[in-house]
This record gives sequence, C-alpha cells and structure tokens, in this order.
Amino acid sequence: MTLSEQPRVLKHQVVRSQLEELLADLVEGDPFPAERDLAESFSVSRETVRQALRELLLDGRIERRGRMTVVAGPKIRQPLSIGSYTEAARERGMETSRILVGWKRLTADAVLADRLAIAIGDPVIQLERVFTTDKVRVALERTRLPAYRYPDLEADFEVTSSLYAEFRRRGVRFGRTEDTIETTLPDAREAALLHVDARTPMFLLNRLSYDKDNTPIEYRRSLYRGDRMAFTQTMYAD
Amino acid sequence: MTLSEQPRVLKHQVVRSQLEELLADLVEGDPFPAERDLAESFSVSRETVRQALRELLLDGRIERRGRMTVVAGPKIRQPLSIGSYTEAARERGMETSRILVGWKRLTADAVLADRLAIAIGDPVIQLERVFTTDKVRVALERTRLPAYRYPDLEADFEVTSSLYAEFRRRGVRFGRTEDTIETTLPDAREAALLHVDARTPMFLLNRLSYDKDNTPIEYRRSLYRGDRMAFTQTMYAD
Repeated sequence: MTLSEQPRVLKHQVVRSQLEELLADLVEGDPFPAERDLAESFSVSRETVRQALRELLLDGRIERRGRMTVVAGPKIRQPLSIGSYTEAARERGMETSRILVGWKRLTADAVLADRLAIAIGDPVIQLERVFTTDKVRVALERTRLPAYRYPDLEADFEVTSSLYAEFRRRGVRFGRTEDTIETTLPDAREAALLHVDARTPMFLLNRLSYDKDNTPIEYRRSLYRGDRMAFTQTMYAD
Repeated sequence: MTLSEQPRVLKHQVVRSQLEELLADLVEGDPFPAERDLAESFSVSRETVRQALRELLLDGRIERRGRMTVVAGPKIRQPLSIGSYTEAARERGMETSRILVGWKRLTADAVLADRLAIAIGDPVIQLERVFTTDKVRVALERTRLPAYRYPDLEADFEVTSSLYAEFRRRGVRFGRTEDTIETTLPDAREAALLHVDARTPMFLLNRLSYDKDNTPIEYRRSLYRGDRMAFTQTMYAD
C-alpha cells in the first residue's frame, strides 16, 4: 500500500512555507518584515499573513519584542534527566530563577493517596512555582509532597532555591523517577502565568519519584513552553 | 517575589473546564452531548461551545466517530527507547502497521553531510512511512541513510517491516542514539498524511544514530500525534 494523498493546502500554509524560506536566511534578533509589507509582496490578504505569522509564533520561530517582530533564538535544549531543571540549566551557563505562585495544604483523595502511598485524608503539601531561564518564563511546576516526610517545609524552604537540593538536605534520596511526557494546550491560568498564547503547544511532564526504599517522595506536574524548550537524550545500546 | 496574576479567562475556557468535569464521570466510547444541547445547558453561544470542544479534540480528550462525538480512549503510552517503535507497541499487544509514503535518492548538502559524516554530494537514501497503531495513524517517519552503507536497500527491504530489524540483518549495530524532542504544529502535508487537524500539537523527534564505531548510521525525523501518544521513561539515580 502506498499513500498518494493530495493534501488540501490552505493559503496561509503556502505563505508560511514562503516565510520559512525567508527565515532560513536570517539570524536571531533580525527584524521580520511587517504584516502589511508581506501581504503586499505575496499578494495575499493581511489576515492570511497574520495566520501564517501566528503559526510561526506558536512554533517559536519568531517572537514579538514590543511592537517589533524578530527572528527568535534557538530553543533552550534541556537533557531529560533525574536531576533539577535549574541546576542543569545553570551548568549550561543560563541564568535561572524561580518565582513562587503559592503553597497549599491538601488532603489526599483516593487517586493522590494511591500515588503517594499514603492514606486517604492524609495531609499533602503543594508547592507551585514558575521557572525562568534568561528572564523568560519557561515552566510552571506543581509539586505535591506527602506532608509527613517534609515537616515545617513551608517555613524552612527558601522558595527561590532548588527543591531537590532541599530533599538532599533533609536526607531524602532519589531511587528512581517515572515520567510521562505529553503535549497539551495551556488553560487560561497557565497561559497567563507563563505569558503565552493559549494556542501554544506545551510539554506536560508528570513525574512520580521514589526514594531508595521504593517509597514515593513527590508527585510533580511540570508544564514547559513548547515554543521555547526542547528536550535532549542520549541512549546507549546494550 | 510572589505571583498574583488574575488571568483574563475567556468564556470558552470556562466552558472547557465545565466539560472537563463532565468528562471525569464518563468512560471511553461514551457519547458526548451535542453542541446545541451543551450551548443550551451552559447558556452560551454554540460558537463558544464549539471552541471549547475544539480544544478538547486537539488535546485528545474526545474524538469524532462519524457524526458522533465520543469520549476518547487514553493516549498510547510508549517508552522512550533506542529500539523500534512498532516492536515496542507489539510487545504491548497493539496491532501496528507501516504504510509507505515514498523512497527518494538525495545528494547530501553541507548540513546532511556533516550529520551523516559523509562528503557533500554523496548519495543519501530517504524513506518516508506512516505508522499506525490499532488502525490509527500515529506517526510519520522520515529516515535518511548514507547510501554506501545500505546497498540495494530499496530493492531488498520490505517496507511494511521493521527498518531496525533490516539494520540487524545487514550487520549494522546500534552504539547510541541522540534524540531531540520538540513540540510543533504539522504542516498541510503532514496533517493530511496523519489525518489530523493542523492545530494539533505534535511531538517532533529528531534522532541521529551511531554504530559501535561511532559512525552515523541514520538521521531520522519522526512526527508523533500529540493527541494520541504519550512517552514514558523511568530513570534510576546513581
């Protein structure tokens, strides 16, 4: 069986391909032609150009700087690893920071109790933070922790520092992490916290971490901006 | 510093949250209420409901079956691994197939020559296929191979079988793979080949594979439907 489908190509998709050719000759920070000029030179409507530009924006190829549209830099490449995102970014010479969104105390429902291997109704600490890299908000992380394991965490933990470093300080040692990586679209709150258009494809990483004794130590939900981040991984054959 | 942003929540995003609550009580295959009925029960316009439904569709939460909208099944969970996608899917009891899109002979430009460690102008074999799992088109894969390494490949290789098995048969043995994982939106051709809406977030996996002697053996670009696929990974601490 061979495929020979003739896709129905929309006008803005043709313009997008033409703009991608244009992009190939430009470098990061170069100003991108104005919507009106592009509409004129391709002989299409401004709305058609606008749609093509929107897709390039969502894909992280161009970005707005004030009223200007410029060629975006390459995505931030981040190894998929068991360690701290910010520690890895700093090793690569990037400036990172963490901004507190909020602390919450929850009581475990059946699903959360099962994940964290605690009883239904047990207290759970929730910490939510935004991560920035080179001043760009790139990730929103919500961590849920079994409270018995981290006494006085809200009082002791400096929220702009590494949570994984705090784990080490408290003698909580990683055994393994189980990750699921999906794509998703942000909801209204997530889009506002990360300063993105709600149509931006995002990475959603759910992680359940265990200590050396096979006891769950955190359940984490991390949302990464797909227009700014790429994950890398090297695997070795047996 | 603490964030206290009040996001501007659009009406269809409120409806989307309400629909997500509805979804929580339904199981795969359950019919989803009609647009008109939803508009009436939430007292919003049909266009508002339509936007909310579109986001749930792009997220893979609901799907169209003919004229019906039903609750979608869970995403196909696929371990990130060095091995063949289809071999892994079959081990998990899924039915897979591969559909030829086309063979091409290319000559290496500077970028491709550098990646595959060949000379500029050297012949490169390109194979493009669509992968299906349980009859759903889930991935589009384009593999570029240094031709010197795979003589008569186009004639010998049965295109519905595993390319990695063909590598083994020819004595080409994996040393390591280097992957980059991004999100992206499909272009018109890709959307048509995978039967998806062009606004569907996709995974884009670029892989450069090396043999045991550190020589590149393939450069692969795989596009996976983000509404149908999730990747999983377990990592162990030192």
